[in-house]
Amino acid sequence: MKIGILGGGQLGRMLIQEALKYDDEFYTLDPNADCSCAHISHFTQGDFNQKDEVVNFGKDKDVVSIEIEHVSVEGLEVLEKQGVKVIPNSNIIKIIQQKILQKQFYEQNDIPSPAFQVILSKEEEIKIPFPFVQKLNTGGYDGKGVQVIKNESDLNKMWDEPSVLENLVDIDKELSIIIAKNESGEIKTFPVTEMIADPKLNLLDFNICPAQISEDVQNQIQIIAEKFMKAAKSEGLFAIELFLDREGKIWVNETAPRLHNSGHQSQEGNANSQFEQFYRVLKNLPLANTSDHGFSGMLNLVGEANYTGKVKYEGIEDVLKLPNTYVHLYGKGDTKPGRKMGHINVLADSREELLEQLVAIKSMVRVISEYDPK
Amino acid sequence: MKIGILGGGQLGRMLIQEALKYDDEFYTLDPNADCSCAHISHFTQGDFNQKDEVVNFGKDKDVVSIEIEHVSVEGLEVLEKQGVKVIPNSNIIKIIQQKILQKQFYEQNDIPSPAFQVILSKEEEIKIPFPFVQKLNTGGYDGKGVQVIKNESDLNKMWDEPSVLENLVDIDKELSIIIAKNESGEIKTFPVTEMIADPKLNLLDFNICPAQISEDVQNQIQIIAEKFMKAAKSEGLFAIELFLDREGKIWVNETAPRLHNSGHQSQEGNANSQFEQFYRVLKNLPLANTSDHGFSGMLNLVGEANYTGKVKYEGIEDVLKLPNTYVHLYGKGDTKPGRKMGHINVLADSREELLEQLVAIKSMVRVISEYDPK
Repeated sequence: MKIGILGGGQLGRMLIQEALKYDDEFYTLDPNADCSCAHISHFTQGDFNQKDEVVNFGKDKDVVSIEIEHVSVEGLEVLEKQGVKVIPNSNIIKIIQQKILQKQFYEQNDIPSPAFQVILSKEEEIKIPFPFVQKLNTGGYDGKGVQVIKNESDLNKMWDEPSVLENLVDIDKELSIIIAKNESGEIKTFPVTEMIADPKLNLLDFNICPAQISEDVQNQIQIIAEKFMKAAKSEGLFAIELFLDREGKIWVNETAPRLHNSGHQSQEGNANSQFEQFYRVLKNLPLANTSDHGFSGMLNLVGEANYTGKVKYEGIEDVLKLPNTYVHLYGKGDTKPGRKMGHINVLADSREELLEQLVAIKSMVRVISEYDPK
Repeated sequence: MKIGILGGGQLGRMLIQEALKYDDEFYTLDPNADCSCAHISHFTQGDFNQKDEVVNFGKDKDVVSIEIEHVSVEGLEVLEKQGVKVIPNSNIIKIIQQKILQKQFYEQNDIPSPAFQVILSKEEEIKIPFPFVQKLNTGGYDGKGVQVIKNESDLNKMWDEPSVLENLVDIDKELSIIIAKNESGEIKTFPVTEMIADPKLNLLDFNICPAQISEDVQNQIQIIAEKFMKAAKSEGLFAIELFLDREGKIWVNETAPRLHNSGHQSQEGNANSQFEQFYRVLKNLPLANTSDHGFSGMLNLVGEANYTGKVKYEGIEDVLKLPNTYVHLYGKGDTKPGRKMGHINVLADSREELLEQLVAIKSMVRVISEYDPK
């Protein structure tokens, strides 16, 4: 089967890696000729935001999918009309691409998400109380395009673009659930994971599975995931990012219509990974067993501040000496501050052992460049 | 790092798949432009048995290795003289390539292997008692080039080529151990596996781990593996195929200087697979934890008799519905009788459950071609 993926980053790379267990041909489209997928797939250099390039790339494929949601929805619509299978479908990608549509989708489908106001410019009257979060309608990614407005004096830093303003949740935990649906209608979730974010880079740092949550919270999440899947009216694999507030209530932060950083520990931590599951969705195969093997966690390898250029992973050999620890690099030649370069998965028998191990590993590894700037 | 592999079959493919976790560049050399590695590595079409082609392929690589042992040793010797790292070294490949040298190597190094006689033609006087096994000095592979001579009347079918004639062992079990050594001198073995061969095709059929053997047998094997590794004077990953006779004694059948079919269940059955271990050997990294997760087994998917052409895997969707079952296909477009097309790994909580599951799966799947010849 000819499978086309818009985007050639690490998510695509790990999908293709997993799918090398099978006999399909992968095609990728990415502007960067040296992207993570360039040398392991049939690669087309091009812009997945350009309608015509998406149509040209996708027209002879059996299925077209994404590993990044910022793609030309118009292009995908044309492909759907031409009879190409697009997973997830263009409609749900469009909704998720635009924060305003995404919030309205939650509201219409009775999916709990923080109260919000839509503004088209910063001149509009603000009706939502302080503190609130401004999320740009489009262009947000990896924490970009999101800021907290605490009080009057923060108002001058507001972006003058169409945005969602939403209540700032008093967060107890950040959680995530990955859910998949195939064309036959079969649905499976992965165990809920718990995130610990680095406040400086706003990039996910540790990810732990299973999350330490009550049965009630577990139930709230399961209901939300199923409601989302029903309302989305699309096959695909989705990551729903959630907030648990200090009163025990779950709120949807946002959803990614694709493979997600919060599912990486599934590579060794679960009977099958999110990549295997997504592959099965693309081919409408029976969905895979997602049960976990005890505790697992993930640590992002992110380019350190002040280092740019040819990457050097300091301390990796020491990490490779540890049992039950798995290094995953993304085949990116150059690092820059905050760039996701890889991750490390850890398995453990208890949550305490897992956290200790993750903290120990974090202090062992540095993602720097070959020339020390100091 | 530029890693060159002679051969582009499934062993190379699964090595590259595993190593996509890291940042290296893989190069493969194979005569078949549509081999399993052709589209997932920097591929050179050529003959790995030709000295010059091996030298040209390898001269700009950081390390050159093999995924098949029938390669030009002369080419590898030139590369070693040019300073290219060759793993395993040319000397041990040469010894293993030639059954006569291999048997003499076991004898010289006090490694138990069935008593033998060397003949250069079938005219020589046969001193070994019936029944015995004739193994051609070169060219044997996947059971080819090996035959049993039971009695006088079988003598006329003897091959008229340089051969080893060896005592036929009264086999209780066929076992295998995989052992790896890196340049730093670190050595690690995988748990011993037990094979169940299909007498018709003489291809490995089931492979079970851990083997059901006594502590004494376990010790004999450990001593043999370490002796082998010491005598080989080479880093590398080796699979030592063993016979356990009905009196409880272990004999070496033969050794492969490479990744091996008997280690495939390590992909999901062990903390790290033989592919991860071999990658670490190639880069002289700390060797990986090889402990097993309970019971695991492997079933080869072999082209069924009478079917040739574009492959069709009957029953695979039913297998994908089973938990703890992993399908691995090798990306080969065409099947032919006896061709290894893939394998299925199974995890279980007991040996009985494992065997039941393997037998059940064997009856579910057929490797045939798209047009039924009947």
